[in-house]
Amino acid sequence: MSEFDFIRQLLADLPGLRDDVVLGPGDDAALLQPPPGDQLAMTTDTLIAGRHFPEDADPASVGWKSVAVNISDLAAMGARPAWITMTVSTPDAAGIDWRAFMSGVARALQAYGVSLVGGDLTRGPWAITVCALGFIRPGQALRRDGARAGDVIAVTGTLGDAALGLSVWQSPQAMDDPADAPARDFLTRRLHWPEARVQAGVALTGLATAAADVSDGLAADLGHILTASGVGAEVDAACLPRSPALSRLCRDTGARQRFQLSGGDDYELCVTLPEERLAEAVERVDVPLTVIGRVTRGSGLRVRDGQGALIELERAGYDHFAGSD
Amino acid sequence: MSEFDFIRQLLADLPGLRDDVVLGPGDDAALLQPPPGDQLAMTTDTLIAGRHFPEDADPASVGWKSVAVNISDLAAMGARPAWITMTVSTPDAAGIDWRAFMSGVARALQAYGVSLVGGDLTRGPWAITVCALGFIRPGQALRRDGARAGDVIAVTGTLGDAALGLSVWQSPQAMDDPADAPARDFLTRRLHWPEARVQAGVALTGLATAAADVSDGLAADLGHILTASGVGAEVDAACLPRSPALSRLCRDTGARQRFQLSGGDDYELCVTLPEERLAEAVERVDVPLTVIGRVTRGSGLRVRDGQGALIELERAGYDHFAGSD
Repeated sequence: MSEFDFIRQLLADLPGLRDDVVLGPGDDAALLQPPPGDQLAMTTDTLIAGRHFPEDADPASVGWKSVAVNISDLAAMGARPAWITMTVSTPDAAGIDWRAFMSGVARALQAYGVSLVGGDLTRGPWAITVCALGFIRPGQALRRDGARAGDVIAVTGTLGDAALGLSVWQSPQAMDDPADAPARDFLTRRLHWPEARVQAGVALTGLATAAADVSDGLAADLGHILTASGVGAEVDAACLPRSPALSRLCRDTGARQRFQLSGGDDYELCVTLPEERLAEAVERVDVPLTVIGRVTRGSGLRVRDGQGALIELERAGYDHFAGSD
Repeated sequence: MSEFDFIRQLLADLPGLRDDVVLGPGDDAALLQPPPGDQLAMTTDTLIAGRHFPEDADPASVGWKSVAVNISDLAAMGARPAWITMTVSTPDAAGIDWRAFMSGVARALQAYGVSLVGGDLTRGPWAITVCALGFIRPGQALRRDGARAGDVIAVTGTLGDAALGLSVWQSPQAMDDPADAPARDFLTRRLHWPEARVQAGVALTGLATAAADVSDGLAADLGHILTASGVGAEVDAACLPRSPALSRLCRDTGARQRFQLSGGDDYELCVTLPEERLAEAVERVDVPLTVIGRVTRGSGLRVRDGQGALIELERAGYDHFAGSD
């Protein structure tokens, strides 16, 4: 089968294209109709096997995650996701369960109301690059540079789940109590099937002063907001939201807080906003929104530990290039 | 140095951002202002070392080419290029001459008036994925599915240069006559520094009935037009435009025609248009436009060889996945 027939077959099971896709995959470029008056948000991210997902991950989850992490970047801008392109490289086309992979892609397209409008298929190591476009009203975007001293800092959902989920995935024998199975499943699902907080991002436009998604770990991603905004922050480690599964499988407070502060891949939103807008924000957002600290003058991130001591953090999340990634 | 500081340094030497870039690299997503009334053309392509460019290619040319081949896809739609994202994976950041690579990227951004608005840097095999966006008036795009029986087929520039350039690059000893140095340089430049035919693509909107860029080889790319349009074609091999360098370094007519028919990477445009619009097209386009054949009823590509015999071609260009790529 030629590349072109093969791709046609892969695309056949995807959801139908959005109405604003004038011409979908198959030509030199897709043709797209943006809504009048809106600006575009554009982002791209690569997932590489063994680095951004385990080599033995379910291909369906890889398909899902490669879309979701890009949609998460749009969510962190408050944008409404619309279109993606996807390039896939695989060492050997026959070695991939394409049907499973594309079923995960299809689920994500459906979940986020997005169309896949183009792509590329090459031989190489198992890796996926997605580029995503969304819409945002001019002036409404949740940038990283708007945090102001006095703002509260809040995060959606819970933190640390995906990082502990990776430990569970890599060393299942370390936590093999059958009674823990639901907790293990929850954590590995958080790792492999992350949810982009699109509703929250859109709902927070006009309320939040800054936002980032927690992909590299709270300390790192909040650190980006602080640097871009020229401010500092104090976070209370005891306030970091945690799932029942994290509490159950990680009973050591220090270890748990490290997962919550530095663990990547949760794809929750970390936002800053004036305290007086907090109630409205909590009301509007469809997931729990937890206050974890406050923006301060100065610079740097200080974390209040269980003993009430303030610890100055280096950018503690991992760093894709220089760090453990 | 952290990934973020490193990326900031890489971006520092690029041309200034376009006025329609509301927010450039560094946030979760870029913010872009599309022109009112236009549609968007969106495309993506990956280049992998050893597959799409030689491992020992000048990193500056790799930077250039990774941008240019994507701009070429926009040109083939008749779109005006505007913005790109770029993801780069390298086995070892220190092993790449980043300054050279980024100088090639910068040259391409400058040449095509495009801004790099986002990207990603990961460890992995040496590969670059670009996603490109351009603008096109509604209804003006040069799609692949508009060719009609009776249209003439024309190509910009010359064909086969990049494919012979690859032979020259890989086996310099086979053609080492010093008198041939300028021809060798021309051909390897065609391989490593391809030019996207943006002016031609835009000029041909409203005139051409279909277009594709010659990335996989004329036979393959014209084949896509024929399949999409539900037509056939006859091409006269003797009419295929050739550079003096190709004529000089490849004297065997059969071998030369194979390079011209099946050689990829020239990034010329192949278009179909009504014969009565040809003069205007030649006038408007800033590169030579050569008629090479005619669209017919039916299907398939027939090539008239030097003896006047018509030969039915299989899709003879290479095929990224199934074929020699």
